[in-house]
Amino acid sequence: MRTTASDRLGIEYPIFGFTPSEDVAAAISRAGGLGVLGCVRFNDPAELDRVLSWMDDNTDGKPYGVDIVMPAKVPTEGSQLDLESMIPAEHRAFVDRTLAELGVPPLAADAEQAAGVLGWLHSVARSHVDVALQHRISLIANALGSPPVDVIDRAHRDQVPVAALAGAVGHARSHIADGVDIVIAQGHEAGGHTGEIGSMVLVPEIVDAVGDDGLVLAAGGIGSGRQIAAALALGASGVWMGSYWLTTSEYRLGSAAGGLSSTQRALLAATSADTVRTRIYSGKPARLLKTKWTQAWAQPDAPDPLPMPLQNILVSEAHRRIAESADPEVVAMPVGQIVGRMNEVRPVADVMADLVAEFDATVDRIGAVRT
Amino acid sequence: MRTTASDRLGIEYPIFGFTPSEDVAAAISRAGGLGVLGCVRFNDPAELDRVLSWMDDNTDGKPYGVDIVMPAKVPTEGSQLDLESMIPAEHRAFVDRTLAELGVPPLAADAEQAAGVLGWLHSVARSHVDVALQHRISLIANALGSPPVDVIDRAHRDQVPVAALAGAVGHARSHIADGVDIVIAQGHEAGGHTGEIGSMVLVPEIVDAVGDDGLVLAAGGIGSGRQIAAALALGASGVWMGSYWLTTSEYRLGSAAGGLSSTQRALLAATSADTVRTRIYSGKPARLLKTKWTQAWAQPDAPDPLPMPLQNILVSEAHRRIAESADPEVVAMPVGQIVGRMNEVRPVADVMADLVAEFDATVDRIGAVRT
Repeated sequence: MRTTASDRLGIEYPIFGFTPSEDVAAAISRAGGLGVLGCVRFNDPAELDRVLSWMDDNTDGKPYGVDIVMPAKVPTEGSQLDLESMIPAEHRAFVDRTLAELGVPPLAADAEQAAGVLGWLHSVARSHVDVALQHRISLIANALGSPPVDVIDRAHRDQVPVAALAGAVGHARSHIADGVDIVIAQGHEAGGHTGEIGSMVLVPEIVDAVGDDGLVLAAGGIGSGRQIAAALALGASGVWMGSYWLTTSEYRLGSAAGGLSSTQRALLAATSADTVRTRIYSGKPARLLKTKWTQAWAQPDAPDPLPMPLQNILVSEAHRRIAESADPEVVAMPVGQIVGRMNEVRPVADVMADLVAEFDATVDRIGAVRT
Repeated sequence: MRTTASDRLGIEYPIFGFTPSEDVAAAISRAGGLGVLGCVRFNDPAELDRVLSWMDDNTDGKPYGVDIVMPAKVPTEGSQLDLESMIPAEHRAFVDRTLAELGVPPLAADAEQAAGVLGWLHSVARSHVDVALQHRISLIANALGSPPVDVIDRAHRDQVPVAALAGAVGHARSHIADGVDIVIAQGHEAGGHTGEIGSMVLVPEIVDAVGDDGLVLAAGGIGSGRQIAAALALGASGVWMGSYWLTTSEYRLGSAAGGLSSTQRALLAATSADTVRTRIYSGKPARLLKTKWTQAWAQPDAPDPLPMPLQNILVSEAHRRIAESADPEVVAMPVGQIVGRMNEVRPVADVMADLVAEFDATVDRIGAVRT
């Protein structure tokens, strides 16, 4: 399975695996794909630095990348205290009331003071770039489109290509104009921040718009070799998969005891119909697992979500409380419609081997249709 | 491009073309696909009978099919007068006010009394089946899922296979249990009545659920050979295309003078982002071209759409007025996200030739990736 994207990145398969887990990211790279570590959860650049050093040591010398969250337009910035003061009391009251109604206990009295997820802030995302460029990374991807041009230039000085997610043709064109090397065409099916156009329509549109000015990866709805073959048929040079790794054996985030987390149990049970696209996670539309938490926000009495980054600050303690309450019916987790195919826990290497084998079988199958 | 579906139906290419235009349907069949004539617009069975006789004579002896609209659950039934009386005055007032605001003139004083579209009624859809089975049809498809079992049995007695659209795996399973032969997996991208799951996820899910118990066609977002190759990679045995034929040279519905209709001009100008999924057309969620008409119904002061079949009766005169006003900014037309690729008017035969050539080129391209 060789494409321009796999050749350019020096990887065996053009399978890019986005994940917040360094264990999973390293396993993806070791298995021949490109593991891309999500940085948004690292409030402390020193912690990211330690984790990337671990990645350097645990990827058998193979390439890996990082993913940052940097909105194209600089959003509200400020200290934690400034931002907290911008959150309306009505919103806080709704969150408190909802958590009580859903039976989510408060944090333990001795719990560390929650800092919220500050990776949404431009200043913090920039610190992620600074730290990442001190490691042997092969890609910087931005989950919210084109990063500022000076960040792109900085990466290029270190020969690091830049990727940016796009949910519409116009975004893809402006990413390329800004100097982005790889456009990730992300269909409506995808988990996390996502647009309205389905992968079947979006991918060839973006491939045609980008032409020879960059590479295109397909994201949204991909978790099998058939889907990888479909993405390549649509013209993509590779695939970007995020959700599918959440139920691999190496994924241990949110699991205190080492067993399955409540989030993983909820993901394993969900069908493709059990997701919803909503602004409640970050302030921008993102696809999440549909649970009692997302349903509460869909009630007529729920307030409208706040803009980024305020919404994430508003719900950040709620996310911690939900995670610790370990109730699979009350989960706050971005995931795509491919969740319907996430029905067992397997090692990353096994998942990769199956993807490649099914891709090959699919190509053979449709080759027979052609004749 | 031979598959089980094309062999079973006796057609050259597994490309099923749904269209309300007999000229287009016949041209699709003549070009090697299966033209499928939409019957919902025929209130008078005798008119459908005449049109199908024309199809018999103008398809070079090649197979064609029909598409009916028969909800699985029998909806509100009754005479035109009964049904009219169930429409709230508030809804009528909103439609009148909106048309006035959008500058849509009333019908000419001598216009025929509008009967509304009665094809939504079970009794009328049954008359379509009765008439169609007296012609040499090769397929009965139902746009709203499984038709009643006695209708399926009736078709099977005449060796006519039955197809049903499905937007979710559960629907596909129940269609097969009812005796349906061909499941059309219709993704969120599609025009007309459509569900929430994107084609990339839905098609392989339905293929796996149906297994050897039936054939699966992919619908939603298909208008190029790359997209056909993607659909076959996902496991479909063929494709079901509807929107894409609306801008072929043979499509003349709604065009009084023989030139482009206002609807066609609007479709040619639209991008993939210019559609919306709404209940305003029939009472069930359907994807339409986004225009001033759909936007008016999305305003906070707009009433909720009525259930099927009342909503269509409510808006049926509005649809006639809109069609006659010929303003491309005020159009009421089902279409999928593929509208972004509908940018020129071409004969059906040319469209088919391009689909097949691009399919072959795509299979060759991804064959090279495999090695």
